[in-house]
Amino acid sequence: MGWFSKDIATMDDLFVHTLRDVYYAENQIKKALPDMVEKATNPDLKRGFETHLRETDHAPEAGLPPARGRGEGVTCPAIDGILEEANDIAGEVEDKQVFDAALIAAAQAVEHYEITRYGTLVAWARQLGRNECGSLLKQNLDEEASTHEKLTKLALDDINRKAA
Amino acid sequence: MGWFSKDIATMDDLFVHTLRDVYYAENQIKKALPDMVEKATNPDLKRGFETHLRETDHAPEAGLPPARGRGEGVTCPAIDGILEEANDIAGEVEDKQVFDAALIAAAQAVEHYEITRYGTLVAWARQLGRNECGSLLKQNLDEEASTHEKLTKLALDDINRKAA
Repeated sequence: MGWFSKDIATMDDLFVHTLRDVYYAENQIKKALPDMVEKATNPDLKRGFETHLRETDHAPEAGLPPARGRGEGVTCPAIDGILEEANDIAGEVEDKQVFDAALIAAAQAVEHYEITRYGTLVAWARQLGRNECGSLLKQNLDEEASTHEKLTKLALDDINRKAA
Repeated sequence: MGWFSKDIATMDDLFVHTLRDVYYAENQIKKALPDMVEKATNPDLKRGFETHLRETDHAPEAGLPPARGRGEGVTCPAIDGILEEANDIAGEVEDKQVFDAALIAAAQAVEHYEITRYGTLVAWARQLGRNECGSLLKQNLDEEASTHEKLTKLALDDINRKAA
């Protein structure tokens, strides 16, 4: 998570660092989404990415101390790698329907990353008694899970069949 | 997924490439696990990683054409990034119980990556009529989901509480 050296002394520090990591990740996803909207061929997939772009405005600011806030100085090699893979696809697949199948798989990998991080953060927030913060993070978790479910449905009902 | 330029013409090509990507990922995880076993403090977590190391011997070879097989020349920036984050933690957290909480979160991110890729591969195998291959991949998917569930239980029942 690109943490500074040995600055995580307590569980609360770990929580704040992970929150900053996910904030960085959300920002990277927000930057990548317009390209995914543009490149998707299937209209439902295109619309799905557009909707998700609007939803990604929820920043996980809840509980971030203002002075350290908002992902400054934090990088997240995981989301960078996942998005790098997603981006690679653009240059590798000629066929538009196969491309959509690759794109939706990449988007699902992104969702899974958000689900795992928000899942962890919700559990940690509750353990630390940060209940208000936990509720906000749980909303984000539910939103990502719902996006993932929609993508799965679209892949199974339509996109994979057209690509095969 | 580190694919060669424009060599994905069909859905079958995409399937094989993704299989090679996940093969590379499994190998990277296998290399990382002994270090996680060594560094975990909680005995249940340590044992969990040991078990998973044994299970990771399932390589997703099903359906790989022998000549191109086994991840040669394929890299996967996503798993590299996820493992880089996991590794970063080792240098950043002093407290052993907070460290375990960070480690289990990192392991869950790894599981989520495997779950998303195997989930996609199962769907694609079925769509492509590669039913035998699909069944093998489904076994891997179920194994990863079960590992993820065990990690979640361990985090919620024990590790997070001790870390907080």
